[in-house]
Amino acid sequence: MAERKAGITVALDGTGGDTDRLGGIVRAAEFALTLYPAMRLIVFGSRELERSLKKARTGSRCQFRLAPECIPQDEAPLKVLEGYRDSAMRKAVEAVRDGEAQAVISAGGTGPLVALSRHILGTLGRMRPALCARIPAGEGRFSLMLDLGANARSSAADLLSFAKLGTAAARVMLKNAAPAVSVLNLGSELCKGNRTVLEARDLIASCRGLHCGGFVEANQLFTGDTDIIVTDGFTGNVALKAAEGVARIIAHGPGMKRFFARLAFPQWLAPWQYNGSLLLGVKGTVVKSHASARQEALAVAIVEAARAVEAGLTEKMAADPLLLQPSQA
Amino acid sequence: MAERKAGITVALDGTGGDTDRLGGIVRAAEFALTLYPAMRLIVFGSRELERSLKKARTGSRCQFRLAPECIPQDEAPLKVLEGYRDSAMRKAVEAVRDGEAQAVISAGGTGPLVALSRHILGTLGRMRPALCARIPAGEGRFSLMLDLGANARSSAADLLSFAKLGTAAARVMLKNAAPAVSVLNLGSELCKGNRTVLEARDLIASCRGLHCGGFVEANQLFTGDTDIIVTDGFTGNVALKAAEGVARIIAHGPGMKRFFARLAFPQWLAPWQYNGSLLLGVKGTVVKSHASARQEALAVAIVEAARAVEAGLTEKMAADPLLLQPSQA
Repeated sequence: MAERKAGITVALDGTGGDTDRLGGIVRAAEFALTLYPAMRLIVFGSRELERSLKKARTGSRCQFRLAPECIPQDEAPLKVLEGYRDSAMRKAVEAVRDGEAQAVISAGGTGPLVALSRHILGTLGRMRPALCARIPAGEGRFSLMLDLGANARSSAADLLSFAKLGTAAARVMLKNAAPAVSVLNLGSELCKGNRTVLEARDLIASCRGLHCGGFVEANQLFTGDTDIIVTDGFTGNVALKAAEGVARIIAHGPGMKRFFARLAFPQWLAPWQYNGSLLLGVKGTVVKSHASARQEALAVAIVEAARAVEAGLTEKMAADPLLLQPSQA
Repeated sequence: MAERKAGITVALDGTGGDTDRLGGIVRAAEFALTLYPAMRLIVFGSRELERSLKKARTGSRCQFRLAPECIPQDEAPLKVLEGYRDSAMRKAVEAVRDGEAQAVISAGGTGPLVALSRHILGTLGRMRPALCARIPAGEGRFSLMLDLGANARSSAADLLSFAKLGTAAARVMLKNAAPAVSVLNLGSELCKGNRTVLEARDLIASCRGLHCGGFVEANQLFTGDTDIIVTDGFTGNVALKAAEGVARIIAHGPGMKRFFARLAFPQWLAPWQYNGSLLLGVKGTVVKSHASARQEALAVAIVEAARAVEAGLTEKMAADPLLLQPSQA
């Protein structure tokens, strides 16, 4: 577990995310360094960010690198790959490739981050990378859910790929050697849903090394009924955002309601616990933080990235027989 | 508004929904008749249901018809259409076709209900029917959201169709002559998302008589940022269930948390308010209730069905120029 604890370095893209967040990034860095004393940070960003960092007490464990370019959230992949040589996101990913850092974290656009990570770090086997969140599933319990938006459209074969990535990741992240993989669907009955999910379930059920948990419905996402939830990136993204939206409405009621909500909310469901999605399937630890994440959530995501490195996630996944299989079944 | 208040009859499928619910159906019927004194009910079901109804105080406004067959939730459409002649669901839909009732409500399978309704009642124009919920969007405000699962897969043209159905329905149900229609997507930026939603947005923006509200994210479902949310049936179903799942977890915490949750919950977000989805696009008022709806929620859905009839929903939609347009743009 502690292979690298002595020298974990995380590369932080200091340009992404919602505007006017320099202060937020600096405080997240401070907070993360406090939470995880064995970690170092390399922060990539503008001169302005550099000045803010200098004023803060981040100390010698936080290094700054000038990379002033910011990739727009929705820049086309081809333009991202061909341009933006001085962007913080690209430099941060390159730091992982060059071994200066073991993980990269960005709150920038999902599309650019996925494109750069695939291109610069390469993919594991013939896997289709997917964004995977550790979502709360009861007191002290978690499930993994993927894809959350790395792919805009997914085939049944892609969902099988996600099932393998999720299983390999769960062995490391959840310490569960034989996690159950379920497909998100309209109902738990075997004949409901569209062709993609029906076919995906069959592929998963007949794949050696995977444990098929059948279907789960979206109201079971946080109930711990399964270990891994696979879904296409569009649906996964929508499902988590719908859940967050409702939780936020309840948490931010008017007057006394807000006070009671604070007392009512289960601690384990707190939304910052599932900020930070891992991009599984690339050769390196890549974490995408919510663009709108607050500083605490960003700090937690930075620490999660360091923990994934500490646990040897990328190396163990690369060595997992499930991801070495040449054929699909 | 009160065209039919004097003589509204609702046909209730007394077999669908979760098992062991006879008592629930009877109490829902009683409750709905109390809430809506101008309504009559025809309940279709088994001898056992008949005995339960006789014991209850539903009185002369509640008629029973024997239709003991129950269509399994996931029966194949072809089998539904060719068989189940004595099923409560079929008889209830036929009651609308024959003018004995003006609306039908069922907690049975979505697939069978959609198939029977399309076949027996016919569709409006060349519309693809869709399940539409009135979802809470703040204190005393509602949005319409469709499709919620009548179709397992939808094209951009289908989403345009849903936009038209939703707009025509909003004119009657929300009394909003020019409602904004938005497409559910991963982000509000114009270039995010898969091809279907990008194309659907363009179709809606260029369709005369529709007011395009762009994209909405799933965390904006209950915020009232738009009047109508269109999405494919798979995603819509997942989004609402994810929201319900989280709301339920918060509402059912352990010990005192449950008590505080009751105080914290905004009244307008109470889940029974969006039980009962209208199947828009068929020639008749068809309401699908959640299979797991409790008796209060089923009663509210029955009353919603009667209100839709009272408002002249089907007739006004059939006469809406938007649904009479022969071409798509």
